[in-house]
Amino acid sequence: MFSFDLLAKEGEARAGKLVTPHGTIETPSFVAVGTQATVKALSTEDLRKVGNQVIITNAYHLHLQPGEDLIESVGGLHRFMGWQGPLMTDSGGFQIFSLGAGKKHGVGKIASIFPEKADRGGHLSSKKGKPLVRVNEDGVEFISHLDGSPHLFTPERVIEIERKLGADIILVLDECTSPLHDYHYTRAAMERTHRWAVRALTEFQSTSINSQALLGIVQGGAYRDLRQQSAGFIADKGFDGYAIGGSLGRSKEEMHLVLEWTIPLLPQDKPRHLLGIGEIDDIFEVVKRGIDLFDCAAPTRMARTGTLFVKKGQRFRIHILNARFRDDPRPIDEGCNCYTCCNYSRAYLRHLFVAKELSGIRLASIHNLYFLESLMRRIRTAITKRRLAELRREWFRPI
Amino acid sequence: MFSFDLLAKEGEARAGKLVTPHGTIETPSFVAVGTQATVKALSTEDLRKVGNQVIITNAYHLHLQPGEDLIESVGGLHRFMGWQGPLMTDSGGFQIFSLGAGKKHGVGKIASIFPEKADRGGHLSSKKGKPLVRVNEDGVEFISHLDGSPHLFTPERVIEIERKLGADIILVLDECTSPLHDYHYTRAAMERTHRWAVRALTEFQSTSINSQALLGIVQGGAYRDLRQQSAGFIADKGFDGYAIGGSLGRSKEEMHLVLEWTIPLLPQDKPRHLLGIGEIDDIFEVVKRGIDLFDCAAPTRMARTGTLFVKKGQRFRIHILNARFRDDPRPIDEGCNCYTCCNYSRAYLRHLFVAKELSGIRLASIHNLYFLESLMRRIRTAITKRRLAELRREWFRPI
Repeated sequence: MFSFDLLAKEGEARAGKLVTPHGTIETPSFVAVGTQATVKALSTEDLRKVGNQVIITNAYHLHLQPGEDLIESVGGLHRFMGWQGPLMTDSGGFQIFSLGAGKKHGVGKIASIFPEKADRGGHLSSKKGKPLVRVNEDGVEFISHLDGSPHLFTPERVIEIERKLGADIILVLDECTSPLHDYHYTRAAMERTHRWAVRALTEFQSTSINSQALLGIVQGGAYRDLRQQSAGFIADKGFDGYAIGGSLGRSKEEMHLVLEWTIPLLPQDKPRHLLGIGEIDDIFEVVKRGIDLFDCAAPTRMARTGTLFVKKGQRFRIHILNARFRDDPRPIDEGCNCYTCCNYSRAYLRHLFVAKELSGIRLASIHNLYFLESLMRRIRTAITKRRLAELRREWFRPI
Repeated sequence: MFSFDLLAKEGEARAGKLVTPHGTIETPSFVAVGTQATVKALSTEDLRKVGNQVIITNAYHLHLQPGEDLIESVGGLHRFMGWQGPLMTDSGGFQIFSLGAGKKHGVGKIASIFPEKADRGGHLSSKKGKPLVRVNEDGVEFISHLDGSPHLFTPERVIEIERKLGADIILVLDECTSPLHDYHYTRAAMERTHRWAVRALTEFQSTSINSQALLGIVQGGAYRDLRQQSAGFIADKGFDGYAIGGSLGRSKEEMHLVLEWTIPLLPQDKPRHLLGIGEIDDIFEVVKRGIDLFDCAAPTRMARTGTLFVKKGQRFRIHILNARFRDDPRPIDEGCNCYTCCNYSRAYLRHLFVAKELSGIRLASIHNLYFLESLMRRIRTAITKRRLAELRREWFRPI
């Protein structure tokens, strides 16, 4: 029920087709973040219309509320959230990190980025404070961010939760380290994550129903030898694909190095997912290093604060609350064909944000995702035609 | 460019066609409240899909933000808000009442109803407090609820604002009295409203561009002789239609009496609009007394708190946060064909509300408006077939 075929390569960049029981994902693909079984402010019809192919929800959040048993009892996650396309579930490793080391260190996936901006999953804040997590060999004990109740996630328990949720592609439980963790701790956590990965795979294989694929996760922080060890270890265990998780260093340049160390060690014939990265200016960087899938909450989070994607603008964005858009009759982006750009002006969008109208948040989210999906379509076509470098130059041409 | 044709009558209830420059409204019709140039949480595409025919926005709110000059400069209200169907603008009389007597008395249109529930226009709260308004013969001086800036609305100024906004059907400035105002004050305010109505009509006729229709407003509180005087006065001035505004008494029964005193004195050949009323259980009552149009923010406001319309339920509603819906796989209403009911369960809607997800608010708003518009279609058909009383019995049959 799963297959992954490479259609074209340009350097390390790949165009492929990932077949799942709920449809085919053309790669490289953005994965929309739907932490609580909804992409914030959007319906599944909106997602189809913007061209979205796949959504990642979160086992940690859905376990706490409404619970995997409830979702299973009403027909599973696809039916529950009204999405008949491909679905993924993240294991919650990053959310537990946010409650633990992320909270203690006050950081996200990249130390120099505010954790709010690097957040992989919605409501959790990594504001510095007392960690709510204890990691041991068996798994992770943590305190619910919703009601303070105690929980235990083991690698086996997370597979069980993800089985009940029923997404097409699921992830193993991992321990995300912080960019501020030292080499010693990062190595110990990586080795534990490896042992957990084997336990998760054993559990997965013993309950296999052939309708789910399991991704292993490469850890190792921003340490070259650890990333290489981790990629080597995870690569030969027989996972259906590979995710790159955890700390990606102290800058975007370090994040690029992590990819360059890791990806050559992963099998060519399996998909590679970069967890929690995907602003517009990251996309060319990660695709050209061989990433097939990436998820990121930033496009919809930015939409909710009025930060909208444009082709010509600093870091491909404008802030709609800026006074210069007050009476601007143009669409957000003149080259965009999304519902918002076809029907509404910058002046109107700005008015909705000033007036704090919810409809503005949805219209902005539709635009940002459509814009991103259009870029991904162009990137896929470019790789097929061996023109990715050309497309990149076109996008990064000085304004 | 305007016409109103009666197609059928059953008792006082009427089915008709109101032609405007932006399309035909089949009456009786619900008018969706889009105070700030948006129906909260919905796009205009959503409104078309739920079957909405006409939206009422608010001259007071749009004057303060973003301003009528800005809206005119980007092509007028239809283009600004992306709605090519019929549009109305309320004059702001009720909003000014909310800042003034409503605030002082702590009441809304019907004294026994909490003002939050009777609110005709969005953000204003009528919590008891110091009034921010001074009414004199010339007009109304008021303090903006947004930034404290002083403003003067005269009948002529409001017509000028509504001309710039460019809605199809516009309303004169009126002074809404409170259900707690005495006879003496209510009469004085009514007489002033009459003088304002004549001034507004003169201004309107001197600037006529034939693409807008002007409604006069009947006032007089819950006093029979005042309502009759007001209906008689307004009826023969040559307005294009009539609205019934202001205080509607201390109970729904008094509101019904106000309609029974007023409507027989209004011309048969012009549309009649009841301002700010329209919960499900009001609809049969006002339609059977001869109302053609009514607007109400309650259906969308209720949606935002998870109060959803159903055919079988106390007062035609359920509260989705109720624990019994936790794992309920059924749609909100089993007879409903809206996007929400066709795709999502009560369990999922409840999850979205518990998780405070914005998508839940939109899905709930789509349902409530679709449900209401479906009822209105059935009511129009019933009147045509002289079966309104029968339809009413079917709806109010004991559960």
